[in-house]
Amino acid sequence: MDWLKGLAFAKGHGTANDFVIVPDPDGGLVLDAEVVALLCDRRRGIGGDGLLRVVRTAAEPEVADRAGQAEWFMDYRNADGSLADMCGNGVRVYARYLVEAGLAAGPRVPILTRAGLVTAEVGPDTIAVSMPMPVVGGPGTVRLGGVEYRGTAATAGNPNLVVTVPDPSTVDLRGRPELDPGQFPQGANVEFITPVGPDHVRMRVTERGVGETESCGSGACAVAAVVLAGRAGSVTVDVPGGRLVVSIDEDRCVLAGPAVIVAAGTLAL
Amino acid sequence: MDWLKGLAFAKGHGTANDFVIVPDPDGGLVLDAEVVALLCDRRRGIGGDGLLRVVRTAAEPEVADRAGQAEWFMDYRNADGSLADMCGNGVRVYARYLVEAGLAAGPRVPILTRAGLVTAEVGPDTIAVSMPMPVVGGPGTVRLGGVEYRGTAATAGNPNLVVTVPDPSTVDLRGRPELDPGQFPQGANVEFITPVGPDHVRMRVTERGVGETESCGSGACAVAAVVLAGRAGSVTVDVPGGRLVVSIDEDRCVLAGPAVIVAAGTLAL
Repeated sequence: MDWLKGLAFAKGHGTANDFVIVPDPDGGLVLDAEVVALLCDRRRGIGGDGLLRVVRTAAEPEVADRAGQAEWFMDYRNADGSLADMCGNGVRVYARYLVEAGLAAGPRVPILTRAGLVTAEVGPDTIAVSMPMPVVGGPGTVRLGGVEYRGTAATAGNPNLVVTVPDPSTVDLRGRPELDPGQFPQGANVEFITPVGPDHVRMRVTERGVGETESCGSGACAVAAVVLAGRAGSVTVDVPGGRLVVSIDEDRCVLAGPAVIVAAGTLAL
Repeated sequence: MDWLKGLAFAKGHGTANDFVIVPDPDGGLVLDAEVVALLCDRRRGIGGDGLLRVVRTAAEPEVADRAGQAEWFMDYRNADGSLADMCGNGVRVYARYLVEAGLAAGPRVPILTRAGLVTAEVGPDTIAVSMPMPVVGGPGTVRLGGVEYRGTAATAGNPNLVVTVPDPSTVDLRGRPELDPGQFPQGANVEFITPVGPDHVRMRVTERGVGETESCGSGACAVAAVVLAGRAGSVTVDVPGGRLVVSIDEDRCVLAGPAVIVAAGTLAL
């Protein structure tokens, strides 16, 4: 992979959900799964939860016919190199990169993702993005660390179970959550929350296939929908990696929080 | 910490033991524990097991009187920001950086560390460095994952217990090793090995205060000393992060293995 030498990259994170950013404005860069996995490897590469390739919509054959909707397309990959549709923290980091690199003026930045068009509102600290509208379901249970918890199911692009506990810091998240396979055939993210004020909760999350993470944007949206229980409003969600605010009204769910670019450089591999 | 913006860095690893490298050839850069911890943070910073500040010996008041021994001083910090004396994989990455950055000609590069003078032999793939001579001690036991193992103590700059098992891949390294506090008052790294050929072993290691790591240079030296049992010779040690070769004769222990620079860049924080 000698061609990697000299490849430009940046690294950024939103509430400690971190990404390798690869600028490829005019397209043509082929990042196969092996290269993505190497770049996301925390010890042998740059390290990240995923990779964001920054490419003009018009330069990406897959989506070029939608170039009128957004100048930029977020080609998002999971750390193992597989394709991913959308990531609430990822798109906020992507928007921050576009503005800091001078590729978009802001404050409103439309970004095309595989899950559709997203508009980012880029502020000095906070970046807000529209997310899939979460839908609250019925009750559900999960078994974790030898304890059974009752919670509320909620979909937010992906399946979630939201569990209110007296103190999330005491929940043992090291194991694999056991969910009812009838209710969650593809598993679910499980959020443990406790209220710390009106429409303000503290949350820890274990993501399906990953384990505990420091932040989960869609999980925060699911939590907000459960807390609001049909009301319109804003919920502050404190995650281990920082603070997210989710605002939900009749037809829109907006996730807001910090997103920073940490470094930029070139590969020497 | 606005002054961090624009700070140059590189990142490299030796058998997946990885380091943030901060060039400061003429000295004067004050990296307090908080800054080091941020730079080594894998999600909010660059990410590394430790940090290597690259400074001329003459420019570092602490060691300037030894500038005649080595042009370069390795100011090595642990990921939490505390000072560290020496690291076999770190000094190999440091030497690779000096040569790739044009700061040393190679192939022989003397490097001053807090543990004394080290000479690195920089080859195209492999870098070899002298290490503290390991000393084999008596038998010892460790309890881990509900199982008691018998092994052999060996010091290699730091305390180790080397345990031969039929298959290291089946040992449960998730817990904290329970050692005899009389024999190991400051704890120990515990290496689990199995022979795979003459003077060739496979090893997994749990480092004190850290847990399982993909490589441990001093641990490999302890293992080689136990395998050689007083003979002179070379032992190949396959660790999860790659292959190390330790050569021991009467008065010298040399650790050899790959070391690569992954990327170089500047901070945007």
